[in-house]
Amino acid sequence: MPKETPGRVRRLRAAMAREGFDAIVAFKPQNSFYMSGFNPIIYSHPVVAILTPEGSDALLVHALRDDHAREASFIADIRLYGAWSTKKTMGPSWRAALKTILAERGIEKGRIGLDLDFISVARFREIEAELAGAEFADASDAIMQCRSVKDEDEIENARAAGEIADIGMDAAILALRKGGNEREISLASMAAMSHCWADRYPDKEVADFGNLEHGIQNGMFAWVLSGDRMFLNCDNPTTKTPQKGETAAILLWSVLDGIHTENERTVMIGDVSQEKRRALEAILEIRSEVFDMIRPGTLYSDLFNAAKTGLETRGYGSYIPGRIGHSMGLGAHEWPSIDAATNIPLAPGMILAIEPNIRIPGEVATQISDTVLVTDEGCEFLTKSEGGLLQA
Amino acid sequence: MPKETPGRVRRLRAAMAREGFDAIVAFKPQNSFYMSGFNPIIYSHPVVAILTPEGSDALLVHALRDDHAREASFIADIRLYGAWSTKKTMGPSWRAALKTILAERGIEKGRIGLDLDFISVARFREIEAELAGAEFADASDAIMQCRSVKDEDEIENARAAGEIADIGMDAAILALRKGGNEREISLASMAAMSHCWADRYPDKEVADFGNLEHGIQNGMFAWVLSGDRMFLNCDNPTTKTPQKGETAAILLWSVLDGIHTENERTVMIGDVSQEKRRALEAILEIRSEVFDMIRPGTLYSDLFNAAKTGLETRGYGSYIPGRIGHSMGLGAHEWPSIDAATNIPLAPGMILAIEPNIRIPGEVATQISDTVLVTDEGCEFLTKSEGGLLQA
Repeated sequence: MPKETPGRVRRLRAAMAREGFDAIVAFKPQNSFYMSGFNPIIYSHPVVAILTPEGSDALLVHALRDDHAREASFIADIRLYGAWSTKKTMGPSWRAALKTILAERGIEKGRIGLDLDFISVARFREIEAELAGAEFADASDAIMQCRSVKDEDEIENARAAGEIADIGMDAAILALRKGGNEREISLASMAAMSHCWADRYPDKEVADFGNLEHGIQNGMFAWVLSGDRMFLNCDNPTTKTPQKGETAAILLWSVLDGIHTENERTVMIGDVSQEKRRALEAILEIRSEVFDMIRPGTLYSDLFNAAKTGLETRGYGSYIPGRIGHSMGLGAHEWPSIDAATNIPLAPGMILAIEPNIRIPGEVATQISDTVLVTDEGCEFLTKSEGGLLQA
Repeated sequence: MPKETPGRVRRLRAAMAREGFDAIVAFKPQNSFYMSGFNPIIYSHPVVAILTPEGSDALLVHALRDDHAREASFIADIRLYGAWSTKKTMGPSWRAALKTILAERGIEKGRIGLDLDFISVARFREIEAELAGAEFADASDAIMQCRSVKDEDEIENARAAGEIADIGMDAAILALRKGGNEREISLASMAAMSHCWADRYPDKEVADFGNLEHGIQNGMFAWVLSGDRMFLNCDNPTTKTPQKGETAAILLWSVLDGIHTENERTVMIGDVSQEKRRALEAILEIRSEVFDMIRPGTLYSDLFNAAKTGLETRGYGSYIPGRIGHSMGLGAHEWPSIDAATNIPLAPGMILAIEPNIRIPGEVATQISDTVLVTDEGCEFLTKSEGGLLQA
C-alpha cells in the first residue's frame, strides 16, 4: 500500500525548486529519514534519499535493507546496491547506482543539493569522481530550515515523547528519594520510559540515529549529576549517591519515531545553602520571563538576551552561559541554538528546549530544561514535570 | 595527576611519523576519544584532538566541557573555545583556536592529517579557510589501522563487555521462554546488561559515541526479530510475541569504556520445519570451520571464502551474504569487514564479530554471531553464551 508523502517533504520540494536544485541527495541519517521515513538503525552501509522537484523520488539502500526499507518508507522506488543472498541489485557500488538513478531522471549533470554539513570529504570525493559534470551545492541549510518547523504528526510524536519524559522524571525522583545512587536513578528512569513506550505505543519506534560505526536501538536516556559533578554538565552516571546539602541534576531525553524531547530538573537534597536556593529561585523567575516571550516573531536572540538581562539584574552577570537552549526534533540538539547571534524569528511548529541556568564554578549549579512547542499565540509545554523547588 | 599515554597513542604517533604528518587532528568522536581518553557524550560542540610526532598533544573543547575533559583525558594540555560562565577561553571560534595551537608548535603551515572519512565538507572548507598554507592529508586509514589492533586495556574492556552481553543473552532467552513479546524480551535483556554494569563496574562507562545532533548515555542495546521479521535484519522490536514453529533472533551489543561486543543467537520456538533446523545445523558447522581458521596470518577474505565454500557444499550456494562479519572496537561495526575483497591478514589483538548466516527469502533465516579476540595461536571467545540449537 503506497504511503502518503508528508507535508514536510512537499515543503522541502518547494525549497528545492526555490534554490534551483535538480535534486536533493541526502546521506545524513536524520535527513534521509526525514525524506523517506526509513531508519535502518545501522548506517554502516550508506542510505541515500533522492528527492526531485517533480516527485520522482528514490531511496537507495544496501541489499540487506531491502525488506525493511519497503516496509517503512513512503518512497515507493526502492533501489538496491551490494550483494546479499538472492537480492537483485544495481551492482556492488552505491556510487554507480546513484549515477544511474540520476541519469534515468536526466539530471546526472544537473545541480545536485547535498547535505554537506554531514557528507565526509572522503565520500564527497567519491561522489565527485562518479558524477563528473554535475554541479554540487550545499542543501544543508534548506533541509535544516525545513526541519525546524514540525508537521502535525511530528508534533504528536513530540507530545507523546514529552509524556514519556515526564514519567521518566517521576521515576528518577522516586529513585532519588529512595536513596539510589546516580546509576540506579538513571536506570530506573530509563526503564520507566522504555516500559511506557513498550506498553502504550505499539506502532511507534524508539530507535534513534547513530553514527556510521553502529546504531541506536533505544534513545531513551537519563543521567544524573550530583554535587560537584554538576559542573561536568554531561557525564555517564557514577555509583555516587547524592548527599544531603547537595543539589542533583536529573537530565533526560526521550524519543518517539525520531522526535526528541528533553526534560531536566534540579533537586535539592535536604537543606542546601542559601546561595544554592537563591540561584534556583532566580532561575525559576528567569525561565518564567523567557517563556512569556515565546510567540511567533520573537527572535531566538531575544530569548537569550532576556535570560542574560535576567541574570545580570539578579547579580549573576559574571556567569552568562553561551546559549540558553536549542531546537529539538530529529536531533536532540538541533539547529538553531538560542544564543546572542541567532536572529531568527520563532514560528508556530518550532520545538525548543529552554534551559537558562547558572554556573558559579565550585559553588552553585542549576540545571532545568523544558521542551516547548511554539504555537500561534505563545507556547505549549511538551514536558510538564513538577517544577518549582524540588526537594528530596 | 597526569595519566599515562596508552600504547595505542604511541603506535599512532609512530604511524604519523611514517606518513610524514606534522600532526593528526581528529574530529570523529571515536578517534578523538582514542587519542585523548575523553568522551563528552554530547558532540554538538566539536571536540578536537591534536597529536604531534614529538608528543606536544592538545585537546580542544568547548568551555562547557572544561571540567569533564580535565577529569577524563590523558592529554594534559586542555584548551577551550566558546563562552560559558567564568571560563577563560581562546575565543569564540574553535577554528582560530586550532590555528593558534598549531602555530605554537610551528606547524600551522605543515602537513596535517585529518580524519577525512568523518569531517564534513562544510567543516573542511572552514578548516581550509582558517589554515591557509597548510597541506591536508587523509589520516583515516592510519587511524583505522591503528584502531584495528587492540591494547591490553581495550581487550580487558572487551572481555568484560562480552560477559555482560552473555548475561543479556541469558535474560533475553529467559524472557522469551516466559512468553514475552519482542519488546519485553529486549527490555529485559537491556536491563540485565545495564544492572550488571551498574553493580560490577564502578569505574567503567557505558556511554557511546553519538552523532553531532545528540549523544548516547547507554550503549547496551538488545533487539529481537521473530518469524518473518528476521528478514528485516535490523529493526526496532515490536509487540509481536514469537510463535511456535518460528525461529527468533536475539541480537545485542554491549559496550564498556567505548569497546563493543556483539552476541546474537537464533532460537527455535517449539518444533520448527526441517528446512529451518537443517539451515541452523549447517550454520553451526560452518561457524566451526571458520573459527578453526582464525589465527595470525589468515586473511579476512580467507574467512569469508571458507564460509562461502561451506554454504556452497551444503546446497546454499544461491544464498551467499555480502560479508560474514566485521571488526569491533570503538565501533560496533568497525573497519575492516570480513568479505571477499578484504585481503588483510589477521593479527593478535584484533577483535571480530563472526557471523556467517543463511537467508532464504521468505523461508529460512539464521542469525548467530560471536565476538572473538585473535590470539597468538588462534582465537579466544569473548562472548560465550550457550550455543548449539537453542530451543524455547
